[in-house]
Amino acid sequence: MRLTVMTDYALRLLMFLGQRQDRLCTINEVAQAYDISEAHLMKVTHQLALHGWIETIRGKGGGMRLAHSPAEISLGAVVRNMEADFDLVECFASDGSCVLRGQCALAGVLRDALEEFLQHLDARTLADLIPGSLMFRLKEDGRESATIQART
Amino acid sequence: MRLTVMTDYALRLLMFLGQRQDRLCTINEVAQAYDISEAHLMKVTHQLALHGWIETIRGKGGGMRLAHSPAEISLGAVVRNMEADFDLVECFASDGSCVLRGQCALAGVLRDALEEFLQHLDARTLADLIPGSLMFRLKEDGRESATIQART
Repeated sequence: MRLTVMTDYALRLLMFLGQRQDRLCTINEVAQAYDISEAHLMKVTHQLALHGWIETIRGKGGGMRLAHSPAEISLGAVVRNMEADFDLVECFASDGSCVLRGQCALAGVLRDALEEFLQHLDARTLADLIPGSLMFRLKEDGRESATIQART
Repeated sequence: MRLTVMTDYALRLLMFLGQRQDRLCTINEVAQAYDISEAHLMKVTHQLALHGWIETIRGKGGGMRLAHSPAEISLGAVVRNMEADFDLVECFASDGSCVLRGQCALAGVLRDALEEFLQHLDARTLADLIPGSLMFRLKEDGRESATIQART
C-alpha cells in the first residue's frame, strides 16, 4: 500500500520548512537533504503554493517558507489534496464492466476504511510531525546545527 | 493511494468464489469475468491457497473453491497477508539516511492511520462483500444466471 510520491514529498517538504521557519529554504537543499528528485520537488512546491500552504519568493536570495504556522496545516487536508485519487483497487476507476457491478460491496467497505485513515490524519497537523523543541539553524559556514528551543 | 494488484485481485477472486460456493471455479473464468491477467491470478490463487483461504483441485474438472465460509474469512487478514509491505512513503523502506532521522514523527502518524484502515477491515468478512441473497448458477448452456436465495 502506497501514497503517491507527490504526497510523500509534500509531507517531507512541509516538515523540512516547519523546522526552519526562521529562514527561506531552497528546492536544491531539500532535494539534497532527502536525496530526492529536484524536478519532482518543483511540482510539489507548485502544488503546495497553489493551495496556500507555502509561500515562494523568486529571484536571488529567494526560496520558500510555510505560509501558516505548522499547527494550522492539517495533515488530512494535505493528503486529500495531494493524492490524485483514492482508487484503492483497479475497478474503482474502470468503466464498470465488472460482472459484480451493482452487487459489489467492496468499494463501500474500502472507502469506509479509507475514511478512517484520512480522519486520523484530519485530527493531526504539521506541528505533530515536528518535535516542538527542535530547530535547525545555518551556521556561518553554511552547514546546519540543530538546537533545542521551546515551541512558541 | 493504492493497494497492490495482488490484494485487489485476491479480494475480487474471493468474492467471485463466495458467490459460487456450489461448484468449482477456474482461473480462466475469473480472468474473463473481470477482464484481468490470468498469470497474475495464478500467483494470487497460489498465495490464497498457501494461507488456507481457498482449496484447489487439480486435473480435468478441477478448479478452486473457498476453504471456509465467507463469514470466516476476515478482510483485514486478507489485506494484511496479501500486501507485500505497508511502506506508505518511500523513506519507510530506505536505509535511513534522512536528515530527520530520529526526529521524524511521520512514520508513527502514518502507521497509526494505517492501523485505523486495517482495523476497519478486520471487523469485516467476505460475507459483508456478498449480498446474502445473490448466487450465480451455471445453466445447461454453460452461461450463468443469478438467483436470489436466503443466506444460510
